[in-house]
Amino acid sequence: MPKKTTDDKKSSGHEEEPAKQLEMFGAKILGDIERKQNPSFNVTTRTRSNISYDEKEGYLRLGSAAEEHNFINIAQSKRFMQTVAIAAKCHDFVKQNLHTTIRGLFYQLKYSLGDDIDENIFNEQSESNPLIEDLEVALSMKRENLNLNANRKGVLTGNMRVLDSFGDEKTEIDTSKMGRSGWAIPSDVDNDIEFVDVKAKYVIVVEKDALWQRLNEDGFWKKENAILISPQGQAARGTRRIIRKLADMGLPVYVFNDGDAWGWYIYWTIKTGSMNLAYIGRDIATPEARFIGVTMSDLERYEFLKSMTMRATEVDLKRAQEMLNYPWINRHNEWVKELKEVLKTKKKLEQDTLQGPRLTFVDDYIKEKIKNKEFMP
Amino acid sequence: MPKKTTDDKKSSGHEEEPAKQLEMFGAKILGDIERKQNPSFNVTTRTRSNISYDEKEGYLRLGSAAEEHNFINIAQSKRFMQTVAIAAKCHDFVKQNLHTTIRGLFYQLKYSLGDDIDENIFNEQSESNPLIEDLEVALSMKRENLNLNANRKGVLTGNMRVLDSFGDEKTEIDTSKMGRSGWAIPSDVDNDIEFVDVKAKYVIVVEKDALWQRLNEDGFWKKENAILISPQGQAARGTRRIIRKLADMGLPVYVFNDGDAWGWYIYWTIKTGSMNLAYIGRDIATPEARFIGVTMSDLERYEFLKSMTMRATEVDLKRAQEMLNYPWINRHNEWVKELKEVLKTKKKLEQDTLQGPRLTFVDDYIKEKIKNKEFMP
Repeated sequence: MPKKTTDDKKSSGHEEEPAKQLEMFGAKILGDIERKQNPSFNVTTRTRSNISYDEKEGYLRLGSAAEEHNFINIAQSKRFMQTVAIAAKCHDFVKQNLHTTIRGLFYQLKYSLGDDIDENIFNEQSESNPLIEDLEVALSMKRENLNLNANRKGVLTGNMRVLDSFGDEKTEIDTSKMGRSGWAIPSDVDNDIEFVDVKAKYVIVVEKDALWQRLNEDGFWKKENAILISPQGQAARGTRRIIRKLADMGLPVYVFNDGDAWGWYIYWTIKTGSMNLAYIGRDIATPEARFIGVTMSDLERYEFLKSMTMRATEVDLKRAQEMLNYPWINRHNEWVKELKEVLKTKKKLEQDTLQGPRLTFVDDYIKEKIKNKEFMP
Repeated sequence: MPKKTTDDKKSSGHEEEPAKQLEMFGAKILGDIERKQNPSFNVTTRTRSNISYDEKEGYLRLGSAAEEHNFINIAQSKRFMQTVAIAAKCHDFVKQNLHTTIRGLFYQLKYSLGDDIDENIFNEQSESNPLIEDLEVALSMKRENLNLNANRKGVLTGNMRVLDSFGDEKTEIDTSKMGRSGWAIPSDVDNDIEFVDVKAKYVIVVEKDALWQRLNEDGFWKKENAILISPQGQAARGTRRIIRKLADMGLPVYVFNDGDAWGWYIYWTIKTGSMNLAYIGRDIATPEARFIGVTMSDLERYEFLKSMTMRATEVDLKRAQEMLNYPWINRHNEWVKELKEVLKTKKKLEQDTLQGPRLTFVDDYIKEKIKNKEFMP
């Protein structure tokens, strides 16, 4: 029977009590033992062959292939024991209402199996990380629900209020009252956090913090009544989740990134999710997102940009070539054209260049692209 | 006559109007021309030979060696023209009350010198960056005063209120009401920003955001009445400035970093400043800072840490060796002992390991170190 995964539509990952889920996971194993059966649990396979692009929904997701992990199996018993140890620790964290990172979890489990045994539960974090993912898919739960914080990055400002229940306190945060700084987007925007009074008309995601600061200073988001987000480079999980949630509220999402394969790839991870996070599928993807630039085509349109290009690096070209091979990208002629232009001309174009004619030109660029619906799919 | 540099004690860099300063810079050059003299300005030399450790004050600063930059000098005329172009642009920014980054400035000046001249003012940002520093020392002003934002990074929480005058608005930010997120430290914490009602007893700086989140969740800063800062790795200029300003208010500063050369180096840049920022000397340094761990000596004290060490990388060892050669570090026997221990054992110890016994052990570790005054100098 195919496992239910967390990427089913509209799943918020918070329907069932994590503690209860973890207890059921343990009870199943104990039950196996009582019934003198080989203890086991099912894990959806996360290899490339089980990852596909969901054409209808527009994001990367895991297929239904699953494998059974068994305790009495020489190749699996250690991993089995380790996964159970992780589940037990996460149960502690959830019960204590304390959070840590996957590195903190690793250090909590980096202890010896006993005075007479010269072996630790874990020696390297590279052993524990994939087993956390195993547990996530086995339980149909994101790590955030297991009280494991991901790295965070990203800022937000706009007409919105957030109710953050944290520790013993409830704090109301007005993200339109953050001055020059913006609200630092948390690693977990799902649990004990409530989005109230989102009054904006659309979301604009700006790759670089420098450009976010520029637009913030211009009061762009006030004039346009937009939510202004910067992932500050590649988007962290919390930032991707917040974009997903704002799209769920019906806000259009426009992405404004560098005009190179790296900037475009950041767009695509926001839009379709990424292969290594396919196991949380739609939760982390915003297929509704549209790209408003920077593009190679802008070079034709804005004369001054011609002297602003940079030489594309080897990494840029390699990334562009990879993107041409992804069926969810190369189905769009507009993107094939852009990527081929990069490979041909070996040029790239930073979003910062739009400050060339005057600092506030960036505002006009964005407004014009949105007004004229000049979106890349 | 030795140039007055911005690192004179208690200088805030905001005493004189930046626009007026820039105008005086231009007037001097125009005056030279009118007097039929070679236009020139003085720049304090920023080479290693003019950087020294100020023993009395405890930070890295520029000496008095200065060089005259002349327009009528084949080796200097291009740089002279470029510096004047930067000054003119900064004057525009200051007059318009608009900010950008040093990259934004570069793109504003990446234009051709004329239709008939096949040369741009700047071709590479590596040309404009050092000239911005020239202008800073020539004017005795930080780039922040010239409306050039530096990269920002870092979060803060604690019993403090900040008045942020930004754009057309004044926003009061209560940094004790930021929930799980903290206040994102701005790139410029000097201009149009006022620190009011700082009620804390001390400042604790925590290298990693993950540990900051841990301590924030525990309400550590509430119980201890501390300002809790994470530079989120190496400290950005804004974060270093805020630590300096809090120390100026009389708050002791304790730094809690990884137990490796990299974590220790982050401490030293907070404490003495760094060589590449020696031209803003004390403004960016907090010699009063004390280090509370993690140290190699902790391995002796906390038994559980023995199984938590990692192998030091080549980069760690190289950095440790470099630090042993710096006179402002090797004057302290405690640091020589720590650094030699790293080189001998090739071990390191992350601050995350302190979550090993239980997640809240980190709190106890910090409290004990402060209570027992177990500080590294």
